[in-house]
Amino acid sequence: MDGEIIDRRVKAVQSRLRKSRIGCMIVTKPANVSYATGFLGDDSWAVITSRDVYLLTDSRYVEQAQNECPRCRIIQRAGPMAGAVGKLIKQLKSVHTVHVESSTSLAAFGALKKTVGSRLKTASDIIGLLRMIKGSSEIAAVRAASRIAGQALRETLRHVKVGMSENELAGVLDLEIRKLGARNSFETIVAFGPNASRPHHQPGRRKLKRNDTILIDFGAKHRNYCCDLTRCFVVGKPPALYRKVYRAVQEAQAAAIKMIKAGVEVRQVDATARKVIAEHNLPVYGHGTGHGLGLEVHEEPVVSQEGKGKLQAGMVFTIEPGVYIPGKLGVRIEDDILVTNRGYKILSSGCPHLPFLGL
Amino acid sequence: MDGEIIDRRVKAVQSRLRKSRIGCMIVTKPANVSYATGFLGDDSWAVITSRDVYLLTDSRYVEQAQNECPRCRIIQRAGPMAGAVGKLIKQLKSVHTVHVESSTSLAAFGALKKTVGSRLKTASDIIGLLRMIKGSSEIAAVRAASRIAGQALRETLRHVKVGMSENELAGVLDLEIRKLGARNSFETIVAFGPNASRPHHQPGRRKLKRNDTILIDFGAKHRNYCCDLTRCFVVGKPPALYRKVYRAVQEAQAAAIKMIKAGVEVRQVDATARKVIAEHNLPVYGHGTGHGLGLEVHEEPVVSQEGKGKLQAGMVFTIEPGVYIPGKLGVRIEDDILVTNRGYKILSSGCPHLPFLGL
Repeated sequence: MDGEIIDRRVKAVQSRLRKSRIGCMIVTKPANVSYATGFLGDDSWAVITSRDVYLLTDSRYVEQAQNECPRCRIIQRAGPMAGAVGKLIKQLKSVHTVHVESSTSLAAFGALKKTVGSRLKTASDIIGLLRMIKGSSEIAAVRAASRIAGQALRETLRHVKVGMSENELAGVLDLEIRKLGARNSFETIVAFGPNASRPHHQPGRRKLKRNDTILIDFGAKHRNYCCDLTRCFVVGKPPALYRKVYRAVQEAQAAAIKMIKAGVEVRQVDATARKVIAEHNLPVYGHGTGHGLGLEVHEEPVVSQEGKGKLQAGMVFTIEPGVYIPGKLGVRIEDDILVTNRGYKILSSGCPHLPFLGL
Repeated sequence: MDGEIIDRRVKAVQSRLRKSRIGCMIVTKPANVSYATGFLGDDSWAVITSRDVYLLTDSRYVEQAQNECPRCRIIQRAGPMAGAVGKLIKQLKSVHTVHVESSTSLAAFGALKKTVGSRLKTASDIIGLLRMIKGSSEIAAVRAASRIAGQALRETLRHVKVGMSENELAGVLDLEIRKLGARNSFETIVAFGPNASRPHHQPGRRKLKRNDTILIDFGAKHRNYCCDLTRCFVVGKPPALYRKVYRAVQEAQAAAIKMIKAGVEVRQVDATARKVIAEHNLPVYGHGTGHGLGLEVHEEPVVSQEGKGKLQAGMVFTIEPGVYIPGKLGVRIEDDILVTNRGYKILSSGCPHLPFLGL
């Protein structure tokens, strides 16, 4: 990771800590650890003070940490994490209050209380809020991930055959992503026919029929940044209802995307998509209209009826309305959008929409 | 999920709750929710009282929950989880104290405090301890997962070619697992040559050479149960050091497995494997010798220097010693073992050890 980018992030975190009068923060959420240190391994925490960033890791990751975190003081722990953190904090003389991220478990908090003492407190997700506004290298990474996902999907569509299972199609897509040097950003969803009415269907043994529909919800992770896309396809003749539903979802997505601009209420974007679905007399989806993405595939902001505040330039999130009719069909279309001062950019424009395959 | 199995589990949980004087427990850990309800979706919590089990889920999962959880009262929540839990608990008249699992985040605990009130307390991982001792259907599922993993590996080895990347080999293996109707139990690790000296190496663009070594750490998930296996292979001529290291690791693994029997100290199993490596004058690995597995790929017990207590019949865990020489090589051999009263059973015997491929 570019040391200058890390320096800028650490300074931003330290400035927030000063404002919140936090002398020392224990960072436990893996994506926040990555953001503040550059480290991409697991099972490691960071401790941030006004002076330094410490990475506490174990023997499995020391070699990797030395390569990835030129700006960190790397501490190799042998025993439990709480003990190592307690020992470090005792050595930090000018630190009075110690905060730990609120995503930490009650069990870890209990263990830390024993080693750090009663001055331990809970902090809100300060780094998560910073991560919500993406820098140019982060935006480029999401765009590159989408391009890889699009290319993998194009390759995969060549292999789609009547008789193949959902599970196999998911595996073929995942292999194409791997061949392009990337990984999945989450477990691929492939749903044939009415299975798509379950928004989080797990691919199974169901086989593709001569006249059938396919929903694929998937993403690539590239330079540790995620994209998240959903595409729907018809094999053979599309039923009349499917065409109608597909167009309504397309229209809902386009209307929501068109709203996007810094300063617009998050909730308004959500409401716009729902309104279009309702106007078509179709059932309005129960999930949110979108979610932020970056180092994690689900992060701030939440674009839903409970969404808070206004859009800010630099936010990146999905727009993914859908229509689900149990026993009949499910259609969802999902793209990844960047908010700008003047409007928006579709970061996933490299991934094709080819609803009617006509295989 | 078989209703009778769920009934038995719920009774065991309720008996523990009675002993701990817990009237109502909020279950937030996904694997614990699955164990107590049969539900396999995400974003859902369970509430267990002396009378009933409630599953709180959202519109995406209601159809699935109705199929998977015949013994649960299913509650479809619209707003945040903490609000739905608070509302439910207000309706439960005979409930006085309310406990939440210690794996819950501080943020979720804070939200629950607002809706449930000050009587909310933290409970230890009661369900996790029950899950440590596997029933016959769980053991069969881990064994079946291992068989699938073994078959997928055998298929994959046919496709190994000089010039293919780590990433592609990982993708081919994952596809074979998919073709057999299963999923990955975690992200596959493929490391060529000296890359294997990093125990948690992420597969990259490194290409397989004419004389090279391969480490594959992978698992299949079948009926929601995980297996976790590591196999090492040599392509072409094995360097002399590699042969020596491979045999030492094999010997260390065999010695540790041979120790396994109900009543033996967990720590002794760990120490036995390390001793063999040390006797060969090779560097002793920094990670644990093994970990439990089941619904999660890492669960209780921990087989390490910090491991506590004695082995019990019905425990299932990995035995995975390794030798890592940075810049040179890494060898790890991992199998999944069931503890019995008389000794052990190797659940992963369906996965081949073929160290010297001679491609």
